Amino acid sequence: MIIIGEKINGSIPSVAKAIAEKDADFIKNLAIAQTQAGATYIDVCASVEDSIELEVMKWLIDLVQQVSDLPIAVDSPNAKTCVEAMAYCNKPGLINSVSGEGDKMDIVFPKIAETKWDVVALLNGNKGIPKTAADRLEVFNEIMDKAKQYNIAPERFHIDPLVEMLCTAEDGISVVNEVISTIKKEYPTIHITGAISNISFNLPVRKLVNQAFLVLAMNAGLDSAILDPLNRDMMGMMYATEACLGKDYYCINYITAYRENKFGPVK
Amino acid sequence: MIIIGEKINGSIPSVAKAIAEKDADFIKNLAIAQTQAGATYIDVCASVEDSIELEVMKWLIDLVQQVSDLPIAVDSPNAKTCVEAMAYCNKPGLINSVSGEGDKMDIVFPKIAETKWDVVALLNGNKGIPKTAADRLEVFNEIMDKAKQYNIAPERFHIDPLVEMLCTAEDGISVVNEVISTIKKEYPTIHITGAISNISFNLPVRKLVNQAFLVLAMNAGLDSAILDPLNRDMMGMMYATEACLGKDYYCINYITAYRENKFGPVK
Repeated sequence: MIIIGEKINGSIPSVAKAIAEKDADFIKNLAIAQTQAGATYIDVCASVEDSIELEVMKWLIDLVQQVSDLPIAVDSPNAKTCVEAMAYCNKPGLINSVSGEGDKMDIVFPKIAETKWDVVALLNGNKGIPKTAADRLEVFNEIMDKAKQYNIAPERFHIDPLVEMLCTAEDGISVVNEVISTIKKEYPTIHITGAISNISFNLPVRKLVNQAFLVLAMNAGLDSAILDPLNRDMMGMMYATEACLGKDYYCINYITAYRENKFGPVK
Repeated sequence: MIIIGEKINGSIPSVAKAIAEKDADFIKNLAIAQTQAGATYIDVCASVEDSIELEVMKWLIDLVQQVSDLPIAVDSPNAKTCVEAMAYCNKPGLINSVSGEGDKMDIVFPKIAETKWDVVALLNGNKGIPKTAADRLEVFNEIMDKAKQYNIAPERFHIDPLVEMLCTAEDGISVVNEVISTIKKEYPTIHITGAISNISFNLPVRKLVNQAFLVLAMNAGLDSAILDPLNRDMMGMMYATEACLGKDYYCINYITAYRENKFGPVK
């Protein structure tokens, strides 16, 4: 599993405070903790007003790179910010994100075409989040057509099928499930990602819903996730699911991760 | 989900002690707790030497029925004990279990044919646990053939595909998954059950493996489980999974079970 560590995000109040107060240690500690917990990328999202976004982004990325060798996921709703922030990164990372909306792909794809950067692509177009699996797959096909034009291989994509809250869904996770399965069948090397905890908005004991969803999404083909790697139960559930799905011969990875203190009672 | 509450079992040391000391309150409390937690059946397994099994079974069943209206799952490796213990029960329950082994079915099926008793059927034959899905399905077909002879409807069966420990499996849960999916496709009304916690033998943080397996087995078609209903995380995971699978419109059952204190922090 590819873990996109989500903790350095200005929409989280404690991170917003650290950004406002220029609390470098707070940010560095989040980077160190996520690195030790087993993240694959450190996501960096400023979530501040446009006029200072790029400057804050640079400050955050510099801090992360002082304490971690992990690649950065540059995270902004503004595609231009994403491509400009690439210059601050020591190594190729992940653009988070493009979608079928507006000119996002045309801004990002030419900039990453000749690089080793990967990219998260959300399956919404100009009309918001498509309700049906068929409509999301239509956006997916537009994205793949455009990727082909720029010669960006499928394995550089992390497709986000758009995880919505379960409490207002009429048929559970069937839309996401269908989107994931269909894409994985057509493009076995593509990555499927998602913001796992969206599923449990407005429900009690959110961790149970998050965990059940994670297991089912992994079963459908999800192999990347935007989540908190310090959540030991989620990390453990990931290893347990990989073992159940036959992707961890004799549970060696599960047992190793446990011995490395990645889940279970804190040692 | 059908919950077969597993706590009154003489193979558990505290229960063995209560049986030896005739500690009626201990047994009654286990029955009350499992009833309140949401069990569908109270499993009763004496696990004592043959000469006193039936007498202990009667003592246990009488105690359970003094405090709970739930039907009993009469649980013995000895099919004769199962059918004799039926007479102690106030209402039809569940025979736990038959299998393709020896004359078990010929002992049990004629006794339950004209009743409303249900039955757990394990997919092992005379040669132990079949290694492949095909061999387990062969045992399944023998069981269904015999059921037809006695005119016992598929929906009265809880088929146990045989849950084995994951740590020695070469391909995760693929055998169980295939067995469940194949049976459910052919007999949509049949129940699929299993001893969930078998999956995690010899692994650390067993609850994570149990939970991941439960979710995947439910996704394949498991709708009954032999487990501890006092395990609040397992119970919650069950409700969360049903909601994800589109079997709980707008999460109403999940939210109701939470309000009824069946999972989440103890209220």
